[in-house]
Amino acid sequence: MVTLLVTAGPTREHWDDVRFVSNASSGRMGYAIAAAGRAAGCRTVLVSGPTHLEPPPGVELERVVSAREMLEVVERRFDGCDVMFAVAAVADHRPAARAAGKPAKTAGAWQLELVPNPDVVATVAARKGGRTVVGFALEAEPTVAAALAKLRAKRLDLIVLNATSALGAARSAATLVFEDGRSVTLPEQPKEALAATLVATALDLHRKKHA
Amino acid sequence: MVTLLVTAGPTREHWDDVRFVSNASSGRMGYAIAAAGRAAGCRTVLVSGPTHLEPPPGVELERVVSAREMLEVVERRFDGCDVMFAVAAVADHRPAARAAGKPAKTAGAWQLELVPNPDVVATVAARKGGRTVVGFALEAEPTVAAALAKLRAKRLDLIVLNATSALGAARSAATLVFEDGRSVTLPEQPKEALAATLVATALDLHRKKHA
Repeated sequence: MVTLLVTAGPTREHWDDVRFVSNASSGRMGYAIAAAGRAAGCRTVLVSGPTHLEPPPGVELERVVSAREMLEVVERRFDGCDVMFAVAAVADHRPAARAAGKPAKTAGAWQLELVPNPDVVATVAARKGGRTVVGFALEAEPTVAAALAKLRAKRLDLIVLNATSALGAARSAATLVFEDGRSVTLPEQPKEALAATLVATALDLHRKKHA
Repeated sequence: MVTLLVTAGPTREHWDDVRFVSNASSGRMGYAIAAAGRAAGCRTVLVSGPTHLEPPPGVELERVVSAREMLEVVERRFDGCDVMFAVAAVADHRPAARAAGKPAKTAGAWQLELVPNPDVVATVAARKGGRTVVGFALEAEPTVAAALAKLRAKRLDLIVLNATSALGAARSAATLVFEDGRSVTLPEQPKEALAATLVATALDLHRKKHA
């Protein structure tokens, strides 16, 4: 049985117990991928940032808040997976420090110092061995060339390129960019339908790699 | 018929189309107040930041994202209300600038400049006339004295004090602090039950004010 590891949702990067930086990811695409993985007969592990979605039945759910927590869980689960879908919109940066509680607000303007987060998918893909790793690239103006550069830099097998208009939406178009530079554009459709195609494509890639 | 104006949820303060600063408010308390207002026979207007909650039936919903959008809607709806519940966890600060699209991430550390947001409830309470205005104070270590100072600074009639542990939770305790310094502590209970008590208390205050 193929084991699928899926990351989903945004991460939240707190500077105190209440306030954080985050992004507008709803988690829908990742949850749809996890559901499609189960439907395709895979054992499916879903590592999810904060969302309000119900986990798909039969999926092993691990909840995390921050990028560093997500990396910790993904590193622990990666060795046991065959195919990984890195769908989460991991925050690029986190506040340099975190205060306890809810400090009183600063009266005037202030500067929040942000430091880079680890790149979750690149960290594990660097030691992927025979695994198949699929990444996502969300761009305001998506281009195949930029996606391919990202695929190579992160050692992905496939990258799914979509526009920021997909964020939080129920439907999305997507362009699939493969390691050899081929690309296929899928028209706008419900994320559930897109997810089924993406899972079938990744499982096919994985089978060919091991044929 | 008494008209109730309720704010709920967090606000999101974007620095580009995808990334923002926000807080962990789920909107549950505000939505429960709006539902309790309808159940008590009030016309109810709910001004909500981004949440995943279903609006209570019969409530007029206005969706907003940022503090400034919330203020704009609240200013427009305030004159037509009798009682206002300011439950939203409005972000204290917003990024000084907002870029279009999703700019490429900065490679290293960087400083996000934050500037103060308007105080939504204090802005309208300053011209409240005969209206009754209820505020909320969420503190890591709540004290009646601090809540009373906030009530006076913001010209509230009643302030509901709770602990940060209430954030996003289904249950909450609360301490009600009145203009004359009286306080009443309500034990931990479902937010729906707490909401019914808070609405009854505010309507009672409003009736006495106009008796």
